[in-house]
Amino acid sequence: MDKKGLLIVISGPSGAGKGTICKELIKQEELWVSVSATTRSPRKGEEDGVNYYFLNKEDFKQKIKEDDFLEYAEVYGNYYGTPKSKVLEKVHNGNNVILEIDIQGALKVKEKYPEGIFVFVLPPSMEELKKRIINRGSETEESFMTRFKSAYREINYVSKYNYAVVNDTVEDAVTKIRNIISAENCRVDRIKESILESKEEFIHEQFYD
Amino acid sequence: MDKKGLLIVISGPSGAGKGTICKELIKQEELWVSVSATTRSPRKGEEDGVNYYFLNKEDFKQKIKEDDFLEYAEVYGNYYGTPKSKVLEKVHNGNNVILEIDIQGALKVKEKYPEGIFVFVLPPSMEELKKRIINRGSETEESFMTRFKSAYREINYVSKYNYAVVNDTVEDAVTKIRNIISAENCRVDRIKESILESKEEFIHEQFYD
Repeated sequence: MDKKGLLIVISGPSGAGKGTICKELIKQEELWVSVSATTRSPRKGEEDGVNYYFLNKEDFKQKIKEDDFLEYAEVYGNYYGTPKSKVLEKVHNGNNVILEIDIQGALKVKEKYPEGIFVFVLPPSMEELKKRIINRGSETEESFMTRFKSAYREINYVSKYNYAVVNDTVEDAVTKIRNIISAENCRVDRIKESILESKEEFIHEQFYD
Repeated sequence: MDKKGLLIVISGPSGAGKGTICKELIKQEELWVSVSATTRSPRKGEEDGVNYYFLNKEDFKQKIKEDDFLEYAEVYGNYYGTPKSKVLEKVHNGNNVILEIDIQGALKVKEKYPEGIFVFVLPPSMEELKKRIINRGSETEESFMTRFKSAYREINYVSKYNYAVVNDTVEDAVTKIRNIISAENCRVDRIKESILESKEEFIHEQFYD
């Protein structure tokens, strides 16, 4: 049975805690972590293929032309992107791949790969989101309001996702995502062919061999 | 947050083991078991509202007219059916309801309540299905072939379901169904409104009160 793996996209507003959840998730589940490509220079200790795939601008632009990104963006003059062929190769070989990404990126990935599992991580409450944004160092009322409003607006995008997981505790959120992975492996859309195939094989053996 | 419960429909071919799975599932999960209505007479020890709702034919037919069955069928002159109002009342009050039913019945339930979760229980293998059908007392080759062919044909209906769970071991199958329930509780389609509402409430408190 040639079963494809799952592409699990963990996304949500800044301050929802998706990074912490992903770190814990990869300890508990066998997941291949998607590595981004970037044109920025490696920092001390960063390894090519581990932290990022480091590309020069020419190569990055060539890959854009070849439609080899699930999504990409330019940030302060540097490009960042999710390499399509690397991710889909893993998925087609039956590996589950995890991709942690912001909302804009996730929506682009969904356009290219709608069969992915899109999980929106929500802060436990708006009150808690407010606290987290303050703790991350929004010194002025103005900078806090900008970031809070942005997170607030971003929550509307939840309707584009398949699942929403409230990050009450990391442990619970991780369990819920693991249950989502388990359930998705039982979805008829994903396994129908292999069920019907194995049925045909049996009948063939029984009655025709 | 007025969250509806789930209607979980456990179905599959005869011999797949759905009965055993349901018995174990209700030990582990808080589920309200759907009780069928019937026009057949109660047997010794059977209680109205526990084993069945016992109705006379007139009342049963009246309920058919009132569209008060999620599905019903006539078997050897008696009617059997799943009472719609009783099930949906529980669901609307936030209870998860479980309904164990054959494939024909499940497909009718799906027409009336497509937001149900339709789980198809598969035998571990066709070989094992064959054994189980033999063990259930198909004495002649002919009666075995009739039952096996019917189960074989029924497996094609898997494509009408949301999930398929292979009954390798009861324990694993029950865990998978519990994970499906957990995942469905995170599905954006089901919880979108409550997420957006709680966001609005917070903003209202923060900025307008």
